[in-house]
Amino acid sequence: MTTHQPSQTPRGVATSGAALFADTIEDQAVPVTRVDWGPPMDGTSDDLATVALDPLRSEANERAVEAVLKVQAMLVDVAPASDVLGLQPGEFLHAGPPLEWERASGPMRGALLGAAALEGLVDDPDDAAALFESGQNVSMSPCHHRATVGPMAGVVSSSMWMYVLEDPEDGRRSYCSLNEGLGKVLRYGAYSPEVLDRLRWMSSVLGPLLAKAVRRTGPINATAILTQMLQMGDEGHNRNRAGTLMLLKELAPAMVETGTASSEVGEALSFIGGNDHFFLNVGMPACKLALDAARDIEGSTMVVAMARNGTDFGIQTAGTKDAWFTGPAQVPDGLFLGSYGPEDANPDIGDSAITETAGIGGFAMATAPAIVRFVGGSVPDALATSRRMGEITLAKNSRWPIPILEFDGAPTGIDVSKVCRTGILPQINTGMAGKVAGTGQVGAGLVTPPAEIFPAALSALAEARRGRVAAAVGG
Amino acid sequence: MTTHQPSQTPRGVATSGAALFADTIEDQAVPVTRVDWGPPMDGTSDDLATVALDPLRSEANERAVEAVLKVQAMLVDVAPASDVLGLQPGEFLHAGPPLEWERASGPMRGALLGAAALEGLVDDPDDAAALFESGQNVSMSPCHHRATVGPMAGVVSSSMWMYVLEDPEDGRRSYCSLNEGLGKVLRYGAYSPEVLDRLRWMSSVLGPLLAKAVRRTGPINATAILTQMLQMGDEGHNRNRAGTLMLLKELAPAMVETGTASSEVGEALSFIGGNDHFFLNVGMPACKLALDAARDIEGSTMVVAMARNGTDFGIQTAGTKDAWFTGPAQVPDGLFLGSYGPEDANPDIGDSAITETAGIGGFAMATAPAIVRFVGGSVPDALATSRRMGEITLAKNSRWPIPILEFDGAPTGIDVSKVCRTGILPQINTGMAGKVAGTGQVGAGLVTPPAEIFPAALSALAEARRGRVAAAVGG
Repeated sequence: MTTHQPSQTPRGVATSGAALFADTIEDQAVPVTRVDWGPPMDGTSDDLATVALDPLRSEANERAVEAVLKVQAMLVDVAPASDVLGLQPGEFLHAGPPLEWERASGPMRGALLGAAALEGLVDDPDDAAALFESGQNVSMSPCHHRATVGPMAGVVSSSMWMYVLEDPEDGRRSYCSLNEGLGKVLRYGAYSPEVLDRLRWMSSVLGPLLAKAVRRTGPINATAILTQMLQMGDEGHNRNRAGTLMLLKELAPAMVETGTASSEVGEALSFIGGNDHFFLNVGMPACKLALDAARDIEGSTMVVAMARNGTDFGIQTAGTKDAWFTGPAQVPDGLFLGSYGPEDANPDIGDSAITETAGIGGFAMATAPAIVRFVGGSVPDALATSRRMGEITLAKNSRWPIPILEFDGAPTGIDVSKVCRTGILPQINTGMAGKVAGTGQVGAGLVTPPAEIFPAALSALAEARRGRVAAAVGG
Repeated sequence: MTTHQPSQTPRGVATSGAALFADTIEDQAVPVTRVDWGPPMDGTSDDLATVALDPLRSEANERAVEAVLKVQAMLVDVAPASDVLGLQPGEFLHAGPPLEWERASGPMRGALLGAAALEGLVDDPDDAAALFESGQNVSMSPCHHRATVGPMAGVVSSSMWMYVLEDPEDGRRSYCSLNEGLGKVLRYGAYSPEVLDRLRWMSSVLGPLLAKAVRRTGPINATAILTQMLQMGDEGHNRNRAGTLMLLKELAPAMVETGTASSEVGEALSFIGGNDHFFLNVGMPACKLALDAARDIEGSTMVVAMARNGTDFGIQTAGTKDAWFTGPAQVPDGLFLGSYGPEDANPDIGDSAITETAGIGGFAMATAPAIVRFVGGSVPDALATSRRMGEITLAKNSRWPIPILEFDGAPTGIDVSKVCRTGILPQINTGMAGKVAGTGQVGAGLVTPPAEIFPAALSALAEARRGRVAAAVGG
C-alpha cells in the first residue's frame, strides 16, 4: 500500500462519528472534513425547518458576519464615564442581561456596594444595600445597553475612566472600564478599602495619564493587537499577557513624554506590567464594536452578544433586535485558587463572553495551549475545541489566523440554527468569582451557556419569519 | 474494533521508517516512539564503537547536560566592553571559530571596518581595510574565547556596551552587545554613517540608561523570560518578540525612575519597542552561560558551542576542551527581503546558533509556528523538526516546555555520537547577511552545519578515549 497514488486518491472526504476512520484516511494524505454530528436539540425541528426556508437567512447571515469581520477597532481615547456615557452618580451599569438587585448574586452585589461608596453615595459600602433595596436615587442597567462591556460584575459608575474604541469607517464607539488586576478587585465582587483605594488611584492618576498618552500616540489598532496576540499564546479572554505587553509598548514612550511626574509614570508602568489581564478591557470593547456592526439585520440567525450577570446567561441575535434570550447561568468547571472549591464559586458572570461571540477566547483555545493549565484540560482538548466551534459558526476570521491550525482563521459568528441543529454549545473560558459578596476571584475554568436559550432564540427567529410570511400573504 | 481493550493493547511501540504504521497504532491510543533511523555517517563506525564503549561517556554526558539545565542566567549589569572585557581600541571580537582577515567574508569585513571607525582608528571605514591587512595595531579573536557571543558578524569593540549575565551559583559570567535592530546594521555587515550614528547613540544614551535601570531593578532572570517566550510564539533565535516585550516591561519603570531626561527615556523605550529582536542579545548569552557550565568534562560527547564566522562553521564539545571542529559554512535556504535572492546571501554567520545548542531556536520550532512564514516551511514541518531534534539530544529541558508538544521540554544537549549514528544534523534558524560588505540583511532561513564536522569531533573523542586506554594499560 502506498500513499502516493493521486489517481486513486479521493479529493477529500467528509466524516462524522468515531475519529478512527477520519484519522486513517487523513494519514493517507486525503483532506478530511470532520463533522460533529448529533441529533438536533429537542423540539427544534419545526423552527429549524422554518428558519432554513427563510429566503432572507443566507444573505442576512453573510451580511452580518462580513460586517463583523471588517471592523478595525481603534482605541481613540480614555475618559470618565460621566463624560463619554453621561453617567450620573447613582447610575450603575452591570454585566449581562437586565437584572434587579433582588435577583443579583453575591459578586454583583459586592461590586455595586463598592461602586456606590466610590461615588460617595455612602461612606460604608455595606450601607448601600439599603439604597439598592429601596431603588431610591440609584438605577441599574446593562452595559450592553450603553455600547459598553464589563468583565465579571462589569459594574461601571460615573467617576470610572473608560477606554473609548471607535470604528473609523462609521464613527461607532464602544466602551470599557480599566482593568484593576486580579484577586481582591471590584469586578470579582470585592469592595474592601484597598479595592476602593486602587479605584481612586485609577481615576486620579492612571486614567488621566492613559488619556494623555493615547491622545499623544493617536489611535491604536486594538484589532491588530488581537491578531498578534493569537500568534503569541493569548486567546484574548483568560490570557492577555502578550496583548498587555503590546499595549504597554505602544503607550510607554508617550506616557513618559506627557510631562507627568516620573514617579507616577513609573507607578503606572509597573501597574500595567504587573497585570497580565490589563489588555482584556481593550480586547472586549474591540469585540463589542465588531459585533454591534451586525445588529438589526432582519433574518440573520447570528449571535451578536453572549453575556452573564451572575444570575442569568443571555444572548442577543442580529435578527431579533434588542431581545434577550436568557436562562440560568452555570457554575464553571475548572481550577480553584488556594483552598477554594466548587462550592465557593458563583455562577458564570461577565460580558467577557463577547470575546467568544467574536471568535476568540474559548473559540481560539488552540492558539493558547498554555491556558489549558489555567482552566483545566489538555492540549488536544484545546485543538478539538477550536475545531468544534467551527461547526457552529459562519466564518473563519482571516484577520485572526491560528498558527497551530495551519493559520486557519478563528471560528467567528455563532449561528443559532447551527447550535440547535448540532447540539454543540459555545465554549467559554472564564474567571470564577466567589459567590459571597466581597470574596474576589476563586478560580478559572470552562463553561457553556444554558442550552435552552438557543431554542428560545430560534423560536423567536422562526416567529419573525412566520410574521413576514403572514404579512406578505396579507399584503 | 475498539481502542479500549487494555489487556490486548501493547504498552507502547517504537517504530522507524514510513509514518503510516506509527500513525495507525497511535490512532489506537498506543504510545508510539518514532525513531528516525538511517545508517551512521560514512566512516564513523569504528569511532562510534570506541566512544560507545567508553565507560566515562554515560556519566559524563549526564553531568554535562545536568550542568546546562540547572543554570539560571541572570542579567546583572550593562557596561562597556572596555570595562568588563578589558578590550582596548584595536581589539575586536568576532562571531564563530578563529578567523583571519584574509579569509573573512563580506559582512564580517564590513562589520570590522565599521567598528574600526567607531573606535576612531580611521575616519572613513574603508580606510580600515589596510589596517586589517597589515595586522598592525589591530587584533581579531572569537567572542567565544572571551565568554561572549555575538549575533551575525558579532563584532565587539571596546566602546560598545555589553549585557553582563551571571550564574548566581558560581559567579560565572557571559556577555553580549546590545541589539541594533534590523536592516542596515553593523552585525549584518553595514557600516554607513547612520549605522555608526546609531552605535554612538547606543553607547552614549541607551547603554548608560539600561545600566542604571538594571542596577535599579536588580538581577533579571533571562532563563525565566526564555521559559515564558516559548509559551508566546518565540523560539528565541529568529523570533524574540515576546521576550523583547517582557524585557521592556521589566526595565521600563526603572528607566523612567533613573532621573534621565524624559526625551531620552522616551527615545530608548521607542527604540526597544520598535525592535522585535532586542531580546536576542540577552537570550544568546543566557544560552552561552548555560553551555559553558558543561565545558571540559572528560568523556562527554555533548556539543557546547555551534558558531559561524561567515566562512567556517565550528563546533566545540564538552570532551575536547577548546578544540574547534570546522567546515565550510553553508548558505541558508529561506525567504529573501525585497529583490534580494540566493545569489546575494553570504554563507551562515553568527554565534546565534548558541540558541540551538541550548535547545531553542530551530530546535524549538514547534513553539513558534508563526516563524515558519518568516523562514519558509509549514506548521507540520515545525512540529516534525522539534521531534527530530529529540533524536540527537541528551535531554528534554523541563524548564523550557513546548506547549503544543503537550509541554514536552525543548530538546537539549546535542550528542555528537547521536548525530553521527543517525545522520540527522542540527536544524538552525537564522538571518541571512548580504555577501557584499555594507549590504545588511537580505533574508532569513534554515541551515544546517556542514556534516563533516561531527565525524571530526567524534574522531577526536574516540582518540581521547584510546589515549585513556593506552595510559591505563601503560600505567
